[in-house]
Amino acid sequence: MKIEGKNCILEALRSDTVSVNTLLVDKGANHSIIRIAREKGVKVQFVDKAILDKETIEGKHQGFIADVSEFVYSEIEDILASSPTPFVVVLDGINDPHNLGSIIRVCECAGVDGIIIGRNRQVAVNDTVMRCSAGAVSYVKIARVTNVNNAIKQLQQAGVWVYACDMDGQEITTTNLKGAVALVIGGEGSGVSRLTRETCDGIVSLKLKGKVNSLNASVACGIAVYEVLRQRG
Amino acid sequence: MKIEGKNCILEALRSDTVSVNTLLVDKGANHSIIRIAREKGVKVQFVDKAILDKETIEGKHQGFIADVSEFVYSEIEDILASSPTPFVVVLDGINDPHNLGSIIRVCECAGVDGIIIGRNRQVAVNDTVMRCSAGAVSYVKIARVTNVNNAIKQLQQAGVWVYACDMDGQEITTTNLKGAVALVIGGEGSGVSRLTRETCDGIVSLKLKGKVNSLNASVACGIAVYEVLRQRG
Repeated sequence: MKIEGKNCILEALRSDTVSVNTLLVDKGANHSIIRIAREKGVKVQFVDKAILDKETIEGKHQGFIADVSEFVYSEIEDILASSPTPFVVVLDGINDPHNLGSIIRVCECAGVDGIIIGRNRQVAVNDTVMRCSAGAVSYVKIARVTNVNNAIKQLQQAGVWVYACDMDGQEITTTNLKGAVALVIGGEGSGVSRLTRETCDGIVSLKLKGKVNSLNASVACGIAVYEVLRQRG
Repeated sequence: MKIEGKNCILEALRSDTVSVNTLLVDKGANHSIIRIAREKGVKVQFVDKAILDKETIEGKHQGFIADVSEFVYSEIEDILASSPTPFVVVLDGINDPHNLGSIIRVCECAGVDGIIIGRNRQVAVNDTVMRCSAGAVSYVKIARVTNVNNAIKQLQQAGVWVYACDMDGQEITTTNLKGAVALVIGGEGSGVSRLTRETCDGIVSLKLKGKVNSLNASVACGIAVYEVLRQRG
């Protein structure tokens, strides 16, 4: 996979979940990334800007493009072991890589212990997700599971209360979310699937005061995780 | 401007801020949009799907593409008159139309009385914004001003407390935001500009617990407006 831009590559160099194989650098560039990459044993190649302009994915290379290894997923056990009262986000059917990237960003900001994503009907952590996560992908544990409902049951067995974020639930701000908790976020349009809703311990909803009432999945996720953060103090 | 897709066109037909001039419909389509458009006096043209496929902007026309008038902006006075304790969002340098669309969506959900955007360094309400707002643009008052700082002063004179959402401020959940209030959201990367920060009555911040701590502007806006909503009860 390829990633580009200074920040994204810097985070990848510092990360445990991604490793940088090679780094293409604009001949004229002079930046601490080069030193850090060399210290990490990364092969650094200086090339003409024209080559970077050709290799670029989004036209935002800033003089740096890196080839990185596939993302290393965690296990649910690793996520549960991160904290005595784990805070987990489970994604059910997020297909848009920009949304997944944004969700990873806000989960990183909120100190979420880990994210669980399904193997089906869901985008994996690919290069677009890495770029959209602005480097946050390097610091959040992400587990990829075959069956989201089984993963939810595993969380419940470990003492985690699992709430679906969906319509027609209890108002999230009046639901106690202080303990070990997981929030399930559904895909845009589809929402949380029926069986998954039924597997959860409860449903929490955001107050909606408009006429259209259509929230972007990453925005909804952001509001929900920050409500948990607020309650935890 | 052109918009496409059933939901987006339905919202435009119901809206006061956008008006539909003509509607292109797939010959084979049968949907209440056609009746509603005719009742509104909109010229409906039935065409081959191939024509829609050619005219489409994002390839998501679902059999319907509409030509709509330019967005009709509101005045700050209209926004202030919407409520005895107005809740306003001021945008300072949002350049990405997807972000603006997402911000309009979450503001509509949260019942924000109006949004103020600057004329410079900021994307206007164009067709991409309309599409990304999922129709919400039809229900939110948006004022476009030459000078954001003067607009903030006008809000303050009307008794609105104006807070910049930015780094190094007071924690938003412990700041009283129950009265007439405006939140200023800065652009990604740049944040709220210095002069604008200084014009505000205070600065509120989201708690950040990560290492990267980079939030998408629309996600940050969503978290902040929902905190206001929570406090207002």
